[in-house]
Amino acid sequence: MCVETSVINERARLLFANDAFYNAFSSRDAAAMDALWARQTSVTCIHPGWQTLTSRDEVMESWRAILGNPRAPSIICRGPQAVAKGDVGLVVCYEVIGATVLAASNVFVQEGDAWLLMHHQAGPCEALPAELAGEEPAESVQ
Amino acid sequence: MCVETSVINERARLLFANDAFYNAFSSRDAAAMDALWARQTSVTCIHPGWQTLTSRDEVMESWRAILGNPRAPSIICRGPQAVAKGDVGLVVCYEVIGATVLAASNVFVQEGDAWLLMHHQAGPCEALPAELAGEEPAESVQ
Repeated sequence: MCVETSVINERARLLFANDAFYNAFSSRDAAAMDALWARQTSVTCIHPGWQTLTSRDEVMESWRAILGNPRAPSIICRGPQAVAKGDVGLVVCYEVIGATVLAASNVFVQEGDAWLLMHHQAGPCEALPAELAGEEPAESVQ
Repeated sequence: MCVETSVINERARLLFANDAFYNAFSSRDAAAMDALWARQTSVTCIHPGWQTLTSRDEVMESWRAILGNPRAPSIICRGPQAVAKGDVGLVVCYEVIGATVLAASNVFVQEGDAWLLMHHQAGPCEALPAELAGEEPAESVQ
């Protein structure tokens, strides 16, 4: 496999892992969320407005609380962009939660043959960029 | 060098690179800031409330605007924690800007013998954690 093809494949695998994260989030599936986070690397998480969570137990407890709320609005990932460097990958994207837009950073680490999350940060963003605001998200396409 | 020593050294080098970032920020040194960002890897940056900047030109233009403001308050980095995985490193920390606290993620990539920034995100945080709030930052110690 040539280097260029390998880079494209890793980006595709990272975007797939990023989709799995938002699918677990949207479907409020705490077990799926747990399986998506690294076990051999220390993990950290910065939810909007929160202090930084710096242990896997704290991060998973936060997700169980967030996903356990039956009134939690759905979340849609928009405009993800991925870059892979060796065993670490970064995906930046937007999160649309009702009328709220967040900008997010998701850092993944390769463990075995999977890209797993080692860090997530989301924070408030003024609005979606114009090139995304006019489009229907993939999830809405019939 | 044993693996454990190597890991500790990489963490120390990452924390040093993170300090250099906040020193450039505090001293409003746009040239130093430019030198701290990767050139062989695509870079991204999410300033608080901003849309994601996705090119080196956009990122540097943002720093020139931010650092060029002579009334910009000083920034102090608190509680940095680093993890290195191969050629990529992550530092999470708090940024104290006057009465405002931000939580930040800084992703570094090794280029040559330097750790350079490939991504930065900072967003509002409720307050410093208790274990940091009671301490004087290193910069204030006489």
